[in-house]
Amino acid sequence: MRTILQERARATRRSLLEAAACLFAQQGYASTSVNDISARSGRTSGSVYFHYASKEGIAQAVVREGFATWPSLVPRYDDPSVPPLERLVALSYDIARALAEDSLTRAGARLWAERHTINADLPDPFVLWTTAVTRLLAQARAGGCLATGVRPAAAARTLVRAFYGFCTLTEALEGSHALTVRLSDWWRLTLPALQRDPRDGHAPTRQAM
Amino acid sequence: MRTILQERARATRRSLLEAAACLFAQQGYASTSVNDISARSGRTSGSVYFHYASKEGIAQAVVREGFATWPSLVPRYDDPSVPPLERLVALSYDIARALAEDSLTRAGARLWAERHTINADLPDPFVLWTTAVTRLLAQARAGGCLATGVRPAAAARTLVRAFYGFCTLTEALEGSHALTVRLSDWWRLTLPALQRDPRDGHAPTRQAM
Repeated sequence: MRTILQERARATRRSLLEAAACLFAQQGYASTSVNDISARSGRTSGSVYFHYASKEGIAQAVVREGFATWPSLVPRYDDPSVPPLERLVALSYDIARALAEDSLTRAGARLWAERHTINADLPDPFVLWTTAVTRLLAQARAGGCLATGVRPAAAARTLVRAFYGFCTLTEALEGSHALTVRLSDWWRLTLPALQRDPRDGHAPTRQAM
Repeated sequence: MRTILQERARATRRSLLEAAACLFAQQGYASTSVNDISARSGRTSGSVYFHYASKEGIAQAVVREGFATWPSLVPRYDDPSVPPLERLVALSYDIARALAEDSLTRAGARLWAERHTINADLPDPFVLWTTAVTRLLAQARAGGCLATGVRPAAAARTLVRAFYGFCTLTEALEGSHALTVRLSDWWRLTLPALQRDPRDGHAPTRQAM
């Protein structure tokens, strides 16, 4: 019995979250009311207040869930047979696609941009993302594929900010259809600094690692 | 007589613009009223309406002036005795400083981020910036200092977006005092892709150019 109730609560929360995400992504935080969210989800506004206490609370949940996309993708990129930098590039295209197409991710990005107008602290998504990228860069270093002098933590912090800024600005200026092409330009400029130049000598053998 | 009146009008517009910039930068567009702007500037609100027609009009002027900082800096970086990529890097630090300290630039950036809540088209600053950077990269190429395969226009578009996103995000996450240090990290990752590798052969002689 308890499980059925929990299951129902989960489904309600999910439908509220999805309705809120669509509305926040399309029309922003200020123009979306709890009534809009309840109308779109087909639940009562009492249900919004029961599960999330306030519009601020649901915005926080949307950002938390929306930005959770990136780290949750990382396990998919744990395949040790693929070079870590290749996995990093593939991951960035998945994130760019989510920023363009997934309403939860889009809502997370828009709410983060409008955070000054929201009367609540939003979770900082960049810490999680930076951790994931640091890990991939550290793997590249361990495999002898990272350029000399690149420090994984500092490089990851830099990459995440430049990537995110680049994607959101490209979408604002050209629309989300341009993201994939422009992201290739970005990697063309960024990858050479990460990759070990083969002329810098042989990569360490597995034994040396 | 006409000149004195023009001079007075210019001074009034300037004081309105500066008052609006400080307020927009500090508290955003929605929380700033025409009355706030008139109170801060010591001019009447009639004066705001006379010179800028509306709050939207003054926001447009602030963005136009705020983002004008970058191209207006470019002539300072026209010294042919300094390598173009060095001038590009120096320019980026000046822009980062303006984003951190100059209220007109800060207001421009904040209004651009809040553009969805402003009922008017804001000028797109990135076109001007990209033109300026394209020019510096083209000069680097003509001087044989640009890495093979880097196309100035595409690279400039990429650099401007990544740089701007990187700066605004760094400021949001760490505050503007961190900008200079973090920008060095960004250039450390970005510059290698722009600079011709000396191992790729000699730079063309002046004659060959």
